[in-house]
Amino acid sequence: MAAESFVGWMTSIQQQLESTLEHCLPPAASEPRALNQAMRYATLEVGKRVRPLLVCAAGELVGADSQVLYRIGAALEMIHAYSLVHDDMPCMDNDVLRRGKPTCHVAFGEANALLVGDALQTLAFELLATPLANVAPATQLIMVRTLAHAAGHGGMAGGQAIDLAGVGQTLSLPELEYMHLLKTGALIRASVLLGAMAGQGLDATQTANLDHFAKRIGLAFQVVDDVLDCEADTATLGKTAGKDAAQDKPTYVSLMGFSAAKRFAAELRDEGFDALQGFGPAAQRLKDLADYIVDRSF
Amino acid sequence: MAAESFVGWMTSIQQQLESTLEHCLPPAASEPRALNQAMRYATLEVGKRVRPLLVCAAGELVGADSQVLYRIGAALEMIHAYSLVHDDMPCMDNDVLRRGKPTCHVAFGEANALLVGDALQTLAFELLATPLANVAPATQLIMVRTLAHAAGHGGMAGGQAIDLAGVGQTLSLPELEYMHLLKTGALIRASVLLGAMAGQGLDATQTANLDHFAKRIGLAFQVVDDVLDCEADTATLGKTAGKDAAQDKPTYVSLMGFSAAKRFAAELRDEGFDALQGFGPAAQRLKDLADYIVDRSF
Repeated sequence: MAAESFVGWMTSIQQQLESTLEHCLPPAASEPRALNQAMRYATLEVGKRVRPLLVCAAGELVGADSQVLYRIGAALEMIHAYSLVHDDMPCMDNDVLRRGKPTCHVAFGEANALLVGDALQTLAFELLATPLANVAPATQLIMVRTLAHAAGHGGMAGGQAIDLAGVGQTLSLPELEYMHLLKTGALIRASVLLGAMAGQGLDATQTANLDHFAKRIGLAFQVVDDVLDCEADTATLGKTAGKDAAQDKPTYVSLMGFSAAKRFAAELRDEGFDALQGFGPAAQRLKDLADYIVDRSF
Repeated sequence: MAAESFVGWMTSIQQQLESTLEHCLPPAASEPRALNQAMRYATLEVGKRVRPLLVCAAGELVGADSQVLYRIGAALEMIHAYSLVHDDMPCMDNDVLRRGKPTCHVAFGEANALLVGDALQTLAFELLATPLANVAPATQLIMVRTLAHAAGHGGMAGGQAIDLAGVGQTLSLPELEYMHLLKTGALIRASVLLGAMAGQGLDATQTANLDHFAKRIGLAFQVVDDVLDCEADTATLGKTAGKDAAQDKPTYVSLMGFSAAKRFAAELRDEGFDALQGFGPAAQRLKDLADYIVDRSF
C-alpha cells in the first residue's frame, strides 16, 4: 500500500465506491422507476467522494477490511447525497446546478426530489445495519448511532437549520464555526470515526486525536468551500458560483476577508496534522487527504 | 393485564408513548429552536399512535419489556410523523390541515418542514440503535434493517412514489393494493414485527402468521382511510376531507364503490383474525386493535 501513489489510491477507491453504490441502489429499470432513476442520478458518477475516502484512510490505519470500508463509505455518501438533493430544493437554496448537472428537482420534479432525499437517507441506514464482515453487531449498532447523531438535529440537519436562520444576519466567527461544525463537520467526523471503528480498536487517546484531526479538517473543508465559492467560476465549480454573497450568507470570506480565510484553512490543516503525530507514517493517507481538501480548486 | 379494558390499555400506552417522545425529542428551548420546536410540533400531542399500539400488542404476545416497546414505538411514530410532514408539503399533497392543526410547513415554513422530516427520520434510527434492555445487538441491528426496509424505496417512500405517478391515472385494484402495501402497509407490518422481535423469539410459522395479520390489517387501515375521506367531514377527520376525489386519486371507494369498500375492510379484518388463531387468547390486544382500526370514525 505504501508504494501506491495518493492519486492511484484515491482513484481505486472512487471506482470501488462507484460499484458499491451501483450495487446497493435500486435498479433503474424496476418500479417505481422515477424514484429509482432519480436516486441513481443523485448518487452515481458525481462528486469527489471525500467522505468515503476519509472512511478508507481511517480504516486503513486500523487494518479494516476494504469491502467493509466501501460499504460504510457508501452509507456516508448516501447521507451526503440526500442532503444535497434537499438543500438544492426551491424552498432551501433553490439551486439549479450541482456537480455540473441539473439538480435533482430540476431533472425529476420537486416531489420526486423530496422522496429521493428521504429514500437515500433510509437506504444509508439499511446499508449500515446489514452485517459487515468481522464487525461485531454491537460495534455496528454504535456505527448506526454515530451516523444518525451526525446527520440529525444535533449534526448536519441542525447545522442547516442554523444556516437557514442566519441568512441576512450578522454572525460572529464562533457562531459561524459552530454552524459549520454541525452542517459539514459532523458528517466528516463521522466518516473518520466509522472508518476507525471497522478495524482493531483504538485507545481513548488515539480516538480523541483522530477526532480532533477530523474536526479541524471538517472546518478546513468548509473554509475552502467559501474561498472557492468566491474565487471560482461556475464551470470549474460544477455548481452555481458566488451564491453565498448573492444570498447574503455569512461566510469565512465575508467575515475574515479572502487572504485570511485562505491562511485559516492552512492553519487548520496544520493543527490536523499535529493531532496525527502519534500515528506515525500509517497516517499518511489521512494527511494526503487533508492536503487534497485544502489545496483543491473545485 | 387481561383484566384491563382495551381503552384503558390503549390510553396508558398513548400516555407512556407521549412521555417517551417528549424525552427523546430535542428540547424546545435549545438551539436550533425553530427546528426543535417544529420537530416537537409535528410529533407531540397528535395522532392515534396506531403503530406504537401495534408494537406493544405484538410485544406483549412475546413477553417483551414495556419500556423497550415504548422506545421502538417512538421510533416508528417518528418515521410516521416525518412522512406526514413531507407528504403535506406544497410539492406533494399541499395540505394545510393535519390532525386538527395547521400543517408543519404552514406553521414553520417550508424549509423548516423539510428539515423537520429529515431530522425526525434520523432520530428514529438513532433511537432504535441505542441499546435496548434484554435485546441482543444482533437483533437490534435486524430491527434497524427491518425499519429501514419498510420506510425506504422498497416500502413507504416507494409507495409514495407510485402514488405520485398514479394521480390522474386509472389503477387496477391489484395496482392500488400494491401501492398501499408499500405506502401504509410496510410500516404497519414493521410495527408488528419489531414488537415481536423484542421478546421471546417466535418460530417461522408464528412469524409468518403474525406477518399475514399485519398485512391484512395494514390494507384494512388504508381502505378505511379511503372510506373516511369520502364519508367524514373535515372537523371529524382533523385533516382536509374529500381530498382524494378532488385530486383525482384512485381509492378503494372510487374503484369498488362505497359499500363494497366497507365490506372489504371487514373481510380483511376477518382474514387477519384467522391468521392469529394459533396464538389463542394472548392475541386479544391485536384483535382489539384491528377492531379499532376498522371501526374508527376518524
